[in-house]
Amino acid sequence: MADPREALDKSVQEQGNKIRQLKTEKAEKSVIDAEVAILKDLKAQLAAMDGTPAAADASKKSKEKVAKNSFTLKVAKGTKDYNDKEMAIREKVFSTITTVFKKHGAVTIDTPVFELKEVLTGKYGEDSKLIYDLKDQGGEECSLRYDLTVPFARFLAMNGKEYQNFKRYHIAKVYRRDQPAMTKGRMREFYQCDFDIAGVYDPMIPDAEILRIVVEALTALDVGEFTVKLNHRKILDGIFEVCGVPAEKIRPISSAVDKLDKLPWEDVRKEMVQDKGLAPESADQIGEFVKLKGGKDLLDILYKNEKLTANASALKGLDDMKLLYSYLEAFQVDHRMSFDLSLARGLDYYTGIIYEAVTDKSAPPKLAEGQRPSIKKGGDEVDESTVGVGSIAAGGRYDELVGMFSGTNKKGEPNLKIPCVGISIGVERVFSILLAKQKLEDIKSNEVQVLVASMSGLLPERMQIARELWDADVKASYMFKVKPKLLKQFEMCDKDQIPLCVIIGEDELAKGEVKIKDMRSKDPSQSGGATVKRSEMIEYIKEYLARQ
Amino acid sequence: MADPREALDKSVQEQGNKIRQLKTEKAEKSVIDAEVAILKDLKAQLAAMDGTPAAADASKKSKEKVAKNSFTLKVAKGTKDYNDKEMAIREKVFSTITTVFKKHGAVTIDTPVFELKEVLTGKYGEDSKLIYDLKDQGGEECSLRYDLTVPFARFLAMNGKEYQNFKRYHIAKVYRRDQPAMTKGRMREFYQCDFDIAGVYDPMIPDAEILRIVVEALTALDVGEFTVKLNHRKILDGIFEVCGVPAEKIRPISSAVDKLDKLPWEDVRKEMVQDKGLAPESADQIGEFVKLKGGKDLLDILYKNEKLTANASALKGLDDMKLLYSYLEAFQVDHRMSFDLSLARGLDYYTGIIYEAVTDKSAPPKLAEGQRPSIKKGGDEVDESTVGVGSIAAGGRYDELVGMFSGTNKKGEPNLKIPCVGISIGVERVFSILLAKQKLEDIKSNEVQVLVASMSGLLPERMQIARELWDADVKASYMFKVKPKLLKQFEMCDKDQIPLCVIIGEDELAKGEVKIKDMRSKDPSQSGGATVKRSEMIEYIKEYLARQ
Repeated sequence: MADPREALDKSVQEQGNKIRQLKTEKAEKSVIDAEVAILKDLKAQLAAMDGTPAAADASKKSKEKVAKNSFTLKVAKGTKDYNDKEMAIREKVFSTITTVFKKHGAVTIDTPVFELKEVLTGKYGEDSKLIYDLKDQGGEECSLRYDLTVPFARFLAMNGKEYQNFKRYHIAKVYRRDQPAMTKGRMREFYQCDFDIAGVYDPMIPDAEILRIVVEALTALDVGEFTVKLNHRKILDGIFEVCGVPAEKIRPISSAVDKLDKLPWEDVRKEMVQDKGLAPESADQIGEFVKLKGGKDLLDILYKNEKLTANASALKGLDDMKLLYSYLEAFQVDHRMSFDLSLARGLDYYTGIIYEAVTDKSAPPKLAEGQRPSIKKGGDEVDESTVGVGSIAAGGRYDELVGMFSGTNKKGEPNLKIPCVGISIGVERVFSILLAKQKLEDIKSNEVQVLVASMSGLLPERMQIARELWDADVKASYMFKVKPKLLKQFEMCDKDQIPLCVIIGEDELAKGEVKIKDMRSKDPSQSGGATVKRSEMIEYIKEYLARQ
Repeated sequence: MADPREALDKSVQEQGNKIRQLKTEKAEKSVIDAEVAILKDLKAQLAAMDGTPAAADASKKSKEKVAKNSFTLKVAKGTKDYNDKEMAIREKVFSTITTVFKKHGAVTIDTPVFELKEVLTGKYGEDSKLIYDLKDQGGEECSLRYDLTVPFARFLAMNGKEYQNFKRYHIAKVYRRDQPAMTKGRMREFYQCDFDIAGVYDPMIPDAEILRIVVEALTALDVGEFTVKLNHRKILDGIFEVCGVPAEKIRPISSAVDKLDKLPWEDVRKEMVQDKGLAPESADQIGEFVKLKGGKDLLDILYKNEKLTANASALKGLDDMKLLYSYLEAFQVDHRMSFDLSLARGLDYYTGIIYEAVTDKSAPPKLAEGQRPSIKKGGDEVDESTVGVGSIAAGGRYDELVGMFSGTNKKGEPNLKIPCVGISIGVERVFSILLAKQKLEDIKSNEVQVLVASMSGLLPERMQIARELWDADVKASYMFKVKPKLLKQFEMCDKDQIPLCVIIGEDELAKGEVKIKDMRSKDPSQSGGATVKRSEMIEYIKEYLARQ
């Protein structure tokens, strides 16, 4: 390109074409905006070249946005980077949860980030539109996983014989092409944290252990007060039958009930009657049931309802709940439960108990009168992507999902049935709650215990001491400069929150000594640090650190 | 579908059409094969229905392959599930490496699995064709990350001011649409494990620390004997200049040299002369240099070469190496290095020292005479995807990559320059080496310490004891059965390698006692276990476990 003026002019024209093309393709606004910013910058550069000072200034201002390759430097929509401080909190959350899971005998497995598209097809109802597909570059059609449950069921179907009795956890990223609301934590890439128990056992035992685990995990995470809402699909289905809901409307009506934590009964009733064609008297009868909540005592009330106990599904559900409560008492977590008939959970695949943990801090935001939250249809295990809605962990029993992958025998029954019950902890929400509790800059993301400093260079000597510390499993660092100032080295201790400093000088080394200073100490008599024999340095430091 | 015969017949026809369509579209063989398997099965079912016994048997045989939704149940090509035993090894590898990194003050960050396509464009040369793209579902064009280095450089360019002095590690999955060779560990989804030091420091100090870290990490991982091959891009470029390689041919000739660990010199020479048009006498001069290897002593030999020291680039490289060796001596890792002039590394972006760790176990396989390994062009940091090639860790200094993202000033210089030096440990290869050293079934993937068993049911009592153990941070489990046989519970201990068993019975509980049995003990006098007071059970177990 000989003439820079000409080259720039050409770029302006090409950028204009690109934007028109994007508009024709109805590209996302953010994409178009980014390209427009580039165009503005190019035009400003052109104007600057032509000698218009104001334009040159505008060019300078928008320069930061424009990289060499003419794109706005950013991460993909709905994703974000996590810096070291954020990761320190995140890793704390993961290790706390993992410790609880392992205490209960859990193991972990890993499945690929993308699956054959067919594996995900038909598992998420309306939400299937949110699945990310990989481009067809020749070969199989693949999609990014939408949750960890369906890949787990696929894994069980493939390895079923070996894994009939299996407690597994899986903490990993999932992907949803949802409209992101980053500030509210609704992301396109986010972590899920699942614990499931697969296999045939005596009734309600694994279910009780899952509930015990939720309580242990949320307590350990220190997220504040929480309650676990509890219900049973069979009771709910029985109620619907008793109230005269036709069989084909049971799931849609259940979906409507699921919205009761976000909408008043009147709105839910309207959806049932007007949108879903339920008889008003049926809706009213449902209304009487779903307002019931309580502890084990609620069971007694329901057992007295003869219409309900005459329904086989409801009676099975009640008996399950009764048994479950006896186990929850042995585990001393019954007081954390709220048996709540309005809890329905969105996903179709639940077949037994369902539950959802809510905290004070995760309660839905108060809405102004007349204002409606936007409701996401379909729902999911822990819907990380639902803005401002309160569940911090959720799950239930799903006895049929693995069978969907196992193929069927001649009678149309699945070849393999592995009943499962599981929980998904909303780690992104836990992360937000914990992040709000502390200042990011106060977090020590590195683990360095000792800085090796010197008064006069002595780089190879500092390196040698660092090496000795590493060999002794002490986390140590030193400044990457040949002759750093002592003050700069102390500043590094402050910035990186390094508690101890080994200070060497030529005189001290000649005497076979070093100084060791506790950088947190405010005691002026200690300001020079303790004098320690070079040969005893490692032992002194290890003992000092062990005492902390 | 009223008539099952008719329905099946229709399925056979549809499946036939599907396969013809796939063949027209030149679909992958594995995909077509899977569909053909389904067709065969459908035909066999049809034959069975028509009463052909042999066909019915065939149908039964291939039944496992066919799922309800008519697809072969499998993971996407080039990916795999990791079961609990494999994950136990994998997590051990990660925690060993992470411990070393943290000892050196490293922090971790996380970047998204997919990036804007533009971020990856122009970074990988020929290998760009291996990048996975996401389907255009409206919005931005995105691709799965190909490595962790480019996203790290993008992160630095976006957050540069805060992260001028930064030791970060990142262990995460990357994606390459390569031809998989699963048995040899060449995957489309695999882990990378990167450690990089970014920022402006005095020369060669971070470089030396990286090399110290590689030695520490590989030693801790216990992968067997290893050597770190070491070279300097500036020395290599100087050699090329001295040997008369024209400027525009330096990178292609460097790529040819990079193949010397897989091909004999004659073949590399041929590539230089015939394919890349280098003068034969230049090639011969290069040949003399690249056969040189040794320790620090090689520096003395090279310093004596006046032609070489007259070259500015080579001299700078030699001075760097001399300084580096003095630091490596302070770190006591100089004996692990092999200064090897044939090491070139594939990636274009290296600007200083380069290195590659090889182990005995990761050495390239011996080839039969005349046989040629297939060479992957382009290369990359740690090429996990190169079959049978020996590097177990690799990296180098790259001072210009961040600048590629920062935009340029009017002089065409990058707005932000953050020099970096890094290492990528080939964790998949480490994983293979460690996996080969032990039997998978011997690995204990759960961490359960105590099984709570009973001679006569007592489920709520077992639950209560488990709860007490959990509260005391003991990892405990019990059988999920109301009345399990004692023998079955002992079998569970064996299978899950649970060391201790608390055994309760009604008589013992009445007396306020439990039995505690070490399941590993072969001492027949201990076969009934020790009798311990119920009230002292927790303390006894904690002390017993602490003694292990």
